[in-house]
Amino acid sequence: MSETILLDHGSGGVLTHQLIEDLFVKHFDNRTLRALTDSALLRVDPGTLAFTTDSYVVKPIFFPGGNIGKLAVCGTVNDLAVAGARPLYLSAGFIIEEGLLLEDLEKIVLTMGAEAVKCGVTIVTGDTKVVEKGACDQIFINTAGIGIIAEPYQNISFGTDVQVGDHILVNGYIADHGMAVLGKRNELDFKTEIVSDCASLNGLIARALAVLSGSSDSSPIHFMRDATRGGIATVLCELARYRNIGIRLDESVIPVRESVKGLCELLGFDPLYVANEGKVVMVVGKADADQVLAELRKDPLGKDSAIIGEVVAAHPGKVVLQTEVGGRRIVDMLSGAQLPRIC
Amino acid sequence: MSETILLDHGSGGVLTHQLIEDLFVKHFDNRTLRALTDSALLRVDPGTLAFTTDSYVVKPIFFPGGNIGKLAVCGTVNDLAVAGARPLYLSAGFIIEEGLLLEDLEKIVLTMGAEAVKCGVTIVTGDTKVVEKGACDQIFINTAGIGIIAEPYQNISFGTDVQVGDHILVNGYIADHGMAVLGKRNELDFKTEIVSDCASLNGLIARALAVLSGSSDSSPIHFMRDATRGGIATVLCELARYRNIGIRLDESVIPVRESVKGLCELLGFDPLYVANEGKVVMVVGKADADQVLAELRKDPLGKDSAIIGEVVAAHPGKVVLQTEVGGRRIVDMLSGAQLPRIC
Repeated sequence: MSETILLDHGSGGVLTHQLIEDLFVKHFDNRTLRALTDSALLRVDPGTLAFTTDSYVVKPIFFPGGNIGKLAVCGTVNDLAVAGARPLYLSAGFIIEEGLLLEDLEKIVLTMGAEAVKCGVTIVTGDTKVVEKGACDQIFINTAGIGIIAEPYQNISFGTDVQVGDHILVNGYIADHGMAVLGKRNELDFKTEIVSDCASLNGLIARALAVLSGSSDSSPIHFMRDATRGGIATVLCELARYRNIGIRLDESVIPVRESVKGLCELLGFDPLYVANEGKVVMVVGKADADQVLAELRKDPLGKDSAIIGEVVAAHPGKVVLQTEVGGRRIVDMLSGAQLPRIC
Repeated sequence: MSETILLDHGSGGVLTHQLIEDLFVKHFDNRTLRALTDSALLRVDPGTLAFTTDSYVVKPIFFPGGNIGKLAVCGTVNDLAVAGARPLYLSAGFIIEEGLLLEDLEKIVLTMGAEAVKCGVTIVTGDTKVVEKGACDQIFINTAGIGIIAEPYQNISFGTDVQVGDHILVNGYIADHGMAVLGKRNELDFKTEIVSDCASLNGLIARALAVLSGSSDSSPIHFMRDATRGGIATVLCELARYRNIGIRLDESVIPVRESVKGLCELLGFDPLYVANEGKVVMVVGKADADQVLAELRKDPLGKDSAIIGEVVAAHPGKVVLQTEVGGRRIVDMLSGAQLPRIC
């Protein structure tokens, strides 16, 4: 077998079949994929499906705490989980540059397989394209995902149950992913100890959802979203804008590591806008907030969780940050440049 | 608004939102997408889901008969349809090179919206990434699709009902797509009249499936697949290999246009291996073949349909072509080079 990816690996012929059987089917091992049909056939119980997609173009493809494959599984699993869904199935579409080391591809595929097992999803269908050298940057991966949403959680995506007094929670330190990836870029190559927070949050989220609201069986979480591109600021600005609610954040309690804060200051980034890949922002009913916080903290992925703000009647449509020095500033949608290819 | 795509269009900030709202939500217009949730929420009846994905990297992105966007809708719709599924929902993931003309992106998105309406699917969720100039070639699109398979059609993907005596059908002229795209490549730029056959085949296929087998309600079609990358040869070689059956093809009745035949001869391609984007190969029970053929021919996308061969007891695992000059040759899996980036 060649040591690098050739154009013929994408031709649909013998080499494509070798790649599929010796790499993808082997490491994503499951019955559905082994059938080698073009569409995966899945039995699904009646209910509401969640369906989502993301393409991953992170640069570099290997970074402290993960690689593009881990990101491609975690990112799409998280998009489903924050909709209140139980993630079930993923597709995986690879666009590979001619010349990529097969060894690197195998590392990526192995990581995807392991992460899928870990978070309980099955990669059931896929596609591989190879483009000539220079036509893409090493490898891009698209994953689409399907999950099932149980009845009580169907409003979470829309945030329709969000109300004044709700608390804003985050499950730990922010801005790690963006700074870890940036620190690893060739042109910078900082010697930092910052590691990406890349993780599948469906287990953590299921734990929080299981806290039922008061005596009813409604969701304690009124809205949540994973704070990837654009960071927690973007998630909260979107929510404030779409639901026309005010949000107050308290800077002093937002978890940011000293190392991340330092690097952000040095480079002129605001941690609120830096990408995370293992952080979820939750809006939780006031009465349930402490219990949800306690549940989150029991999980390794949520041990540094904090209540960082609340929904307020003032300034509808706007997010306002109470700064550590006692001032107040409006947190707005990103209008200028941000790090490209962070996810 | 800028006339080209900027890195900031992918940052998750203001420009990303503009792009989503002014382009994607506008042209893919539907209620689910307008909700702007990360996952689409879909009510699905109980049954078997078909789930598939493909990335599209065709070069050039505009070609006679279509563009990369039309391909991204038709290709994934066809993957679902050949599984015997009714295609319902698509995702769309865009990877865009900085500098792409917004005008070109809009043309592509408009085509996708129009094709989705035409074939009855809804584009319910999406993602946009922008990479720096040189990190991809203009635009790559991934679509994943979900459909529902009715009970009688659940074996089609696996070909388990294929038996000796079954007829092989194709819905018209082969190799148009590959030659149309190749003819348009900058380095060649042949003045050909060849137009891609790019089309959504779900309507045509539904028509053929509606022919019930004899007095039972089983599927008249025992296996089918769209003959894209690798052409009809690859589809039939895979079937022969996986089901260990013999297939005899009759070259004299395989529909190939004279212009395509000529260009193939000139460039050294075998039309059997050249990509199609609107051709399905069907394996149909002998008793139903004429009726299925008649149904196919009633549809504009099937008017040139033909029975091109049959499943035979001889040479299990192999496809044998009866040539026009009276010889016989084995049709094997592609082992050498093929056109890259044809889809």
